[in-house]
Amino acid sequence: MSTKALLLICDGLGDRPSIGGKTPLQAANTPYLDEISKEGINGLMDVISPGIVPGSDTAHLAILGYDPYKYYPGRGVLEALGADMELCRGDVAFRANFATVDDKMRIIDRRAGRKGSKDLAEALNGLEIDHTKIMFTNTTEHRCALVLKGENLSKAVSDVDTHEAGSKVKKCVPLEEGEKELKTANIVNEFVRQSYDILNEHPVNEERRRRGELPANIILLRGAGSYEEVPAMKERFGFGAACIAGASLYKGVAKYLGMDVVPVEGATGIADTNLNNKAEAALHALEKHDFVFLHVKATDSMGHDGNFEGKKDMISRIDKELVARIKDVDAYIVITADHSTPVSIKRHSGDPVPIVIKGEGVRKDGITKFDEISAASGGLGRIRGADLMPILSDFMGFYKMFGT
Amino acid sequence: MSTKALLLICDGLGDRPSIGGKTPLQAANTPYLDEISKEGINGLMDVISPGIVPGSDTAHLAILGYDPYKYYPGRGVLEALGADMELCRGDVAFRANFATVDDKMRIIDRRAGRKGSKDLAEALNGLEIDHTKIMFTNTTEHRCALVLKGENLSKAVSDVDTHEAGSKVKKCVPLEEGEKELKTANIVNEFVRQSYDILNEHPVNEERRRRGELPANIILLRGAGSYEEVPAMKERFGFGAACIAGASLYKGVAKYLGMDVVPVEGATGIADTNLNNKAEAALHALEKHDFVFLHVKATDSMGHDGNFEGKKDMISRIDKELVARIKDVDAYIVITADHSTPVSIKRHSGDPVPIVIKGEGVRKDGITKFDEISAASGGLGRIRGADLMPILSDFMGFYKMFGT
Repeated sequence: MSTKALLLICDGLGDRPSIGGKTPLQAANTPYLDEISKEGINGLMDVISPGIVPGSDTAHLAILGYDPYKYYPGRGVLEALGADMELCRGDVAFRANFATVDDKMRIIDRRAGRKGSKDLAEALNGLEIDHTKIMFTNTTEHRCALVLKGENLSKAVSDVDTHEAGSKVKKCVPLEEGEKELKTANIVNEFVRQSYDILNEHPVNEERRRRGELPANIILLRGAGSYEEVPAMKERFGFGAACIAGASLYKGVAKYLGMDVVPVEGATGIADTNLNNKAEAALHALEKHDFVFLHVKATDSMGHDGNFEGKKDMISRIDKELVARIKDVDAYIVITADHSTPVSIKRHSGDPVPIVIKGEGVRKDGITKFDEISAASGGLGRIRGADLMPILSDFMGFYKMFGT
Repeated sequence: MSTKALLLICDGLGDRPSIGGKTPLQAANTPYLDEISKEGINGLMDVISPGIVPGSDTAHLAILGYDPYKYYPGRGVLEALGADMELCRGDVAFRANFATVDDKMRIIDRRAGRKGSKDLAEALNGLEIDHTKIMFTNTTEHRCALVLKGENLSKAVSDVDTHEAGSKVKKCVPLEEGEKELKTANIVNEFVRQSYDILNEHPVNEERRRRGELPANIILLRGAGSYEEVPAMKERFGFGAACIAGASLYKGVAKYLGMDVVPVEGATGIADTNLNNKAEAALHALEKHDFVFLHVKATDSMGHDGNFEGKKDMISRIDKELVARIKDVDAYIVITADHSTPVSIKRHSGDPVPIVIKGEGVRKDGITKFDEISAASGGLGRIRGADLMPILSDFMGFYKMFGT
């Protein structure tokens, strides 16, 4: 009787029928996923509830057993944790990005040519405004994370990022009436102003201009979140947990929930990610942990790009390079998605995602294909994201009986 | 159009595939259950919610329409009610059992050879400690129930029962800070002390020692509960209800919910129970009551014992001796379980249970077998325990419309 479990989440895997009346998952070549379906119990999962379109952050909290309506700390916090920044109770964190503005503060490129710089980030890290210390780090490409450390801060402030080129950088404004909110908005506005002063003439940007590249001469902030500790998975469910992921958000979610984050060579969070290494790392992590959460991001990115063939091929690769390697491990295997990202609409959707659970004692249901349509006839029926951890805890033996 | 319903709960009936890849219900010979499936609408039921492992007490409350998160009074109360003890608001009740200890209070057998005694129980019944009257009764074998009647008592006290031989009898301690809790814990500890003084030298135990039997020389307590009246089923749903059960817990649940408990010759709550008599009693009770709840315990016991053949045979017996007799009654028939007790793990599990509803107007779904796998494709889909009474009330015509 295995007391271990491996949860594979293929981000945005779910889809709607499009080319040839099929979803990318139906169209892909997936002998190993289908083998797991045959040996397992299948179903559909509404990650939040039917029709609700989940973000990747809230979706992962729900699937990992933390009601996002109660535990969601805001995206900024999860990104900052994923970037290995230290957070204390009351700290306010933001997603940030390098952008390019002209001297009238009009946005030329909100991603500064998708190119960041550790040196530029370092020039901003450690600033102090109104007795509040500012921690700043560059993660991947133009993406950054920022943490405000001080007293009386609030996450109820608006984004500075306009999400579109051509307009002027927005002022950060309080979203609720209160001194904390006003103070935080003022700090943000002052930081954005200073970021321009510091970055615009920085040698790194002079060099970029010489090379004909866009200068990364301002920081745009969004997704304010306020950090609070939550009970760790070990405390909540009784088992030790590890995470294997490339993209920082998922590492951030894992840290937030007290999981060990296992570093993996070549895990990038994009299509070039090394799936072999991730599979090996997952198997290795299962030796020391009861529960391993393994995340693959690129399926979602292909959905956002509307790239049917790309999504289909990525799924075939996951099947061959990852699922084939993990399928016989002595643990419960769960394969699912955090949400659907249909290529036809290039965004997250509220369609439920397919889910399969394989392992000792599951009620095999005769389903022979792992896809959105076959799963609808499976023995699991239609569950919710919040149901998964109780179901899995019961299988693993880490259950708590209600009553006697 | 029948306005009556018969609910048969086979305790712990649900299972996982094991011997021959089948569940005991799949392996059993069940022509009558299958006939009901063919004529009815089938599905799976999460008695509490997916993956949550129910106790028998909370499970029955949920199925009978009483949210256990709101109405669960603690096991002790239900056992005391099932033992025909009178309870008033504020009384605190415990499950109790005769046990055997040595003179250092080390537990030799926490069930005193599974043998109780009405005389020993009577010797403890009516004691008074700290202005609190103690009612005590022996139910079946070593099992007893105890009620504390007095002012300022609390159910927030720990068990005295260690659940294992070899260790010393535990002290009862308050589980919350408060005068009531301290008072109750002191009364429990004083009662346990006195029970040894009274029982150890009792002539019944002298006689047991002479016969080479273990003396029943102490009482162990557990499962404190606090009694509160709840709205009766008649008040809540509008129909008169009766219960037919052997084991005292289920009679206790029935009394708690204001049902009439019908005594049945030979209904024992174990495998030797007289299923014919229970079937006849159910049919008879349906003449006077709108709703009859019929309980069979032995399927659960076989699951706890890991006895696949025993569980399979018990199910075949239920089919032949009970279902065959009730199947044509002019009433809605519901057949289900309170939880799964898979023989492979010998404990309650969070797997959903099969359910079938037969009667006028139900949407027949083409399912031809009553089992955990077939039910997953049924027309009911996957419902919850809390859904059953509303569904049934609607069929019976005892519905209340929400809105106009």
